[in-house]
Amino acid sequence: MATLLKAATISQAIVDDLKSKCESIREKGVTPTLKVILVGEHAPSVIYTRNKKKFMERIGAKCEIINIPDNVSEEAFLKQIKNLSEDKNVNGLFVQLPLPKHLDHIDVGQLIPPDKDVDGFHAQNLYQVMAGDLGQNALLPCTPKGILTLLENAKVDLNGKTVAIIGRSLIVGKPLSLLLTNKNCTVTLCHSRTKNIKEITSKADIVVAAIGKAKFVDASFLGERRDQIIIDVGINHDSGGKLCGDVDFENVKDICSAITPVPGGVGPMTINSLGQNLITATIRQSGITV
Amino acid sequence: MATLLKAATISQAIVDDLKSKCESIREKGVTPTLKVILVGEHAPSVIYTRNKKKFMERIGAKCEIINIPDNVSEEAFLKQIKNLSEDKNVNGLFVQLPLPKHLDHIDVGQLIPPDKDVDGFHAQNLYQVMAGDLGQNALLPCTPKGILTLLENAKVDLNGKTVAIIGRSLIVGKPLSLLLTNKNCTVTLCHSRTKNIKEITSKADIVVAAIGKAKFVDASFLGERRDQIIIDVGINHDSGGKLCGDVDFENVKDICSAITPVPGGVGPMTINSLGQNLITATIRQSGITV
Repeated sequence: MATLLKAATISQAIVDDLKSKCESIREKGVTPTLKVILVGEHAPSVIYTRNKKKFMERIGAKCEIINIPDNVSEEAFLKQIKNLSEDKNVNGLFVQLPLPKHLDHIDVGQLIPPDKDVDGFHAQNLYQVMAGDLGQNALLPCTPKGILTLLENAKVDLNGKTVAIIGRSLIVGKPLSLLLTNKNCTVTLCHSRTKNIKEITSKADIVVAAIGKAKFVDASFLGERRDQIIIDVGINHDSGGKLCGDVDFENVKDICSAITPVPGGVGPMTINSLGQNLITATIRQSGITV
Repeated sequence: MATLLKAATISQAIVDDLKSKCESIREKGVTPTLKVILVGEHAPSVIYTRNKKKFMERIGAKCEIINIPDNVSEEAFLKQIKNLSEDKNVNGLFVQLPLPKHLDHIDVGQLIPPDKDVDGFHAQNLYQVMAGDLGQNALLPCTPKGILTLLENAKVDLNGKTVAIIGRSLIVGKPLSLLLTNKNCTVTLCHSRTKNIKEITSKADIVVAAIGKAKFVDASFLGERRDQIIIDVGINHDSGGKLCGDVDFENVKDICSAITPVPGGVGPMTINSLGQNLITATIRQSGITV
């Protein structure tokens, strides 16, 4: 059985670190504050935002979920983003996705000021990812950042590793491919049009599944070597309604060296990253040193 | 002998198109105007900027090279960029690289307004590359754009193709990998730390060499299949002082299906792209339709 790359092995250390930073910042008169815009009552979004709020309170930050009815006009929605963007008491801001159809064309990540963009979706923050110009103050996209933290915590030496990423999204696949390239990995970015996908994944040192298809990656994607590391970004439900990833965990767990479980792997790391980004954003804006 | 992917097969059509657009724009009272900041007298830079100026004049645009002594202060240099950025008669602006050591830390691409950024280096323009959100008005980085134009002109169906890019620069390797991913290619981005590089390149449908090492890619990088397409981005001099690419042309020309020559391949396409970007930028700024 492979080593489980559980978020739990590192989450407490991250929370402790953030708690202590939060306290130092509060002592200097600022309370790190996150505002989340939630349009409508999409059930998973309600759960996700609630979990994010809980996490922020756990580290001593403030978090307010701003509920907006799903028939909100585009004008009122944009006005709300603008007001919160300009509010000096707001350090971090994001809009929970997905948006209802009539707002879906808006690239909300570009409307939030880059220094409050705790999701790491703004062009300026993604440019830093691309340029590899990442100081202490970079706001990286949360899921890729969480994956890097998990790999670092597991003492994986990324230098020279081959990586196959399945899924070319702007939120995970593309920024992760750039971050890992900057870390000296050789990355192949696979997607729905990739022809020889199993040939590629079976040779990679690290396989990342980020496609949103329940149990898509099974043993046939892995090679004979049994030393591969599998990162599962998916959050899906299987045919029986049970929570599962993009990887068929039971099918591969004995033929790889390490694997992230679902739940308890990449998911909580994404929230950890959000907390780290909120503290980074607050430090950037306030100039407070911790 | 492989098909030669020469810029000459398409350059005249591009020039004719740009000439006609330029004329339409001029008839409406605007002359597309490019300003180039050249710091010092670095010999290749003097030649490159002169060639760019010649091209702009050929299509009926204006181009001025602004020579600045290489001991210019950082303050004066930044002031110059600011003045030109704010000048309404300037439609396109770039700083010829490389810069002298004392200015080398400045990321000049970020100082030029995105809608005048004919080099396509600004975060906002690179975000469009990453997002795949490319309308008529996108300002793409010139070399990747030129390579795409060359491949389209050669009627290469990119859908599902595997691509090995050697070189992870912010100007060529990274944006090209994203553009080709958006075109449904499966891209592996290789670099100096890639361990099994020949194994990767020998299997790829398309190999792009963009590393700046004279004749680095030879027959040992190619497979037995003899149907690979080779794109050579390099501009180097060999041990005899002769201009050459990153590919050992004589060594591979009979074992691939198509190859870009150096000179006469990617190089002139980069200038074509610059001309296209200047016209796009002028249209964006003036609102003139052509």
